[in-house]
Amino acid sequence: MPLETIRWNERGWIELIDQTLLPNELKYIACRTVEEVWEAIKTLRVRGAPAIGIAGALGVVLGIWRSEARSYDEFKAELDRVADYLATSRPTAVNLFWALDRMREAAERNKDKPIPELKKLLLKEALDIIEEDKRICRAIGRNGARLLPDECTVLTHCNAGGLATADYGTALGVIYAAVEMGKRIKVFADETRPLLQGARLTAWELMQGGIEVTLICDNTAAYVMKQGLVDCVIVGADRIAANGDTANKIGTYNLAVLAKEHGIPFYVAAPSSTFDLTLESGDQIPIEERSPEEVTCPFGRRIAPEGVKVYNPAFDVTPARLITAIITEKGVIRQPLHENIPKILNACP
Amino acid sequence: MPLETIRWNERGWIELIDQTLLPNELKYIACRTVEEVWEAIKTLRVRGAPAIGIAGALGVVLGIWRSEARSYDEFKAELDRVADYLATSRPTAVNLFWALDRMREAAERNKDKPIPELKKLLLKEALDIIEEDKRICRAIGRNGARLLPDECTVLTHCNAGGLATADYGTALGVIYAAVEMGKRIKVFADETRPLLQGARLTAWELMQGGIEVTLICDNTAAYVMKQGLVDCVIVGADRIAANGDTANKIGTYNLAVLAKEHGIPFYVAAPSSTFDLTLESGDQIPIEERSPEEVTCPFGRRIAPEGVKVYNPAFDVTPARLITAIITEKGVIRQPLHENIPKILNACP
Repeated sequence: MPLETIRWNERGWIELIDQTLLPNELKYIACRTVEEVWEAIKTLRVRGAPAIGIAGALGVVLGIWRSEARSYDEFKAELDRVADYLATSRPTAVNLFWALDRMREAAERNKDKPIPELKKLLLKEALDIIEEDKRICRAIGRNGARLLPDECTVLTHCNAGGLATADYGTALGVIYAAVEMGKRIKVFADETRPLLQGARLTAWELMQGGIEVTLICDNTAAYVMKQGLVDCVIVGADRIAANGDTANKIGTYNLAVLAKEHGIPFYVAAPSSTFDLTLESGDQIPIEERSPEEVTCPFGRRIAPEGVKVYNPAFDVTPARLITAIITEKGVIRQPLHENIPKILNACP
Repeated sequence: MPLETIRWNERGWIELIDQTLLPNELKYIACRTVEEVWEAIKTLRVRGAPAIGIAGALGVVLGIWRSEARSYDEFKAELDRVADYLATSRPTAVNLFWALDRMREAAERNKDKPIPELKKLLLKEALDIIEEDKRICRAIGRNGARLLPDECTVLTHCNAGGLATADYGTALGVIYAAVEMGKRIKVFADETRPLLQGARLTAWELMQGGIEVTLICDNTAAYVMKQGLVDCVIVGADRIAANGDTANKIGTYNLAVLAKEHGIPFYVAAPSSTFDLTLESGDQIPIEERSPEEVTCPFGRRIAPEGVKVYNPAFDVTPARLITAIITEKGVIRQPLHENIPKILNACP
């Protein structure tokens, strides 16, 4: 039974796994205020595009749960303030904005309801997002698993696993589904500097699931591919533009270039909520730059000279041409991506 | 005045900068036994192919300095034991074996000398290697600096600087020489997991030299190149086969693939002692695998699950076809490398 990354506590707050403590400690922490949710997203206690979306939706519920607004307009103004504030936590993953918009729309759709009922409907909307994510990730997993040979070694980057979603994962969901189909899958996990989500989260999660995983430093992926040890690369995504350009954890573009050089398929696994069709290309995706201390002082230990200049973008953009296919819950989107993205995303349901 | 990485103390031992303490502390430690030299090489207190060669040569002197052998044969047997032992410290960089062989040959050449004189001649041989390294690195620097435009940003990996040689560096020697010629050079330094020689040593050394350096995680190099921020890549080498295939710090091959993808020149800077012409290709270079703890417990802090499988090769091999040119003290070796390597190396000194 997979772990829940984030959940609503019936007493009126959010509980989430504090992922900064993994793999040394598995601990749920409470977020009782919107500020605590914002901080949890900002500091990556909860991370991964779909999980951030869920945190945003539940954060909106938390923000309006004790509202004393007496009119819809007053209530909606409060909700908008909460959503606008949560939207400032992290800029790149679009799922956060998607989830916040969905909460706004749910409120609008039910504007005639009494406010106590509206609150419950908003909670239901957020819980629906969680349940949908569970179903969507399993569909992504099934769609992707069919692409893998019966015996296969996958290289993945960062964590696009259960910890990045409600409970199952996108890139790792494909691996879980393949294993459930009886395929023999091994994994190389990039450690993913600076915050080591591959070492701390992916390796831990796969070991929990009994899947053979080998941890490597990010700079070792090329040599592993050159030795013929990798059959495909599967990564998650934080935002996908209309042409298929994909923002994901820094280092993803690196892997895509290497996969091309070695003739290895490069797959992106993501729910349809990760697409931002308002952006023509990846050039328009805002890339978050994070603190130099993530690089120079990992876990409180200084490993670079005082005052050194650091460039620490949290994401990069992989151009569509390097992506073999994008695996979504609605189907596998193949090249040419810019033509096939609308076809698959607009397909029923 | 550059720092000396390693030196002979007139009282009969070796002093070297303990590079595991940098950048937090600049400290010379004493190696008073051959075992201490072996340990210093093994644990990377002294590292970098040319500096390891120097440590090997001085280690041989240390090993025979207090010899009480009464015949040359007895003395040579002691020397061979010391050299054979030191040769087991690290397998990939050829400069160690080159320097040890040179010490053996110096003994053979002087076998008729009284043993006290022989000891002094061996010390002189080791000190000659140091002085030659200083001249060679400056020649590499001059030869390489001519390749750089007047204004240029260089990406480098690991540390091929003064700390990897007697005092000036190979890849960083090119940068120092270019700056001495009045060129305006900026540097991106890969941090170089797992042991962070880029963050700890290269960033420190360049800052000491007043050269503008920006530290990045290894997985960020691709994105930096894609943004057009890098004009060339320059790295060192641990062993170069007859066809030009080059073993260097893990992650070097990655950069070579990326440089090709982005149309950026990729240079290797190394002394002629780094060539191993007995090897036809890089496939024959032994690649050192190091402890999983370097990856899972950097500096004593566990960042991956207990028991996780780790693949930690210390080097990779970059195929000759990805190398624009190899910069040596004897000249710049251009493509086709397999043809031009013997031409340049066999040219008059």
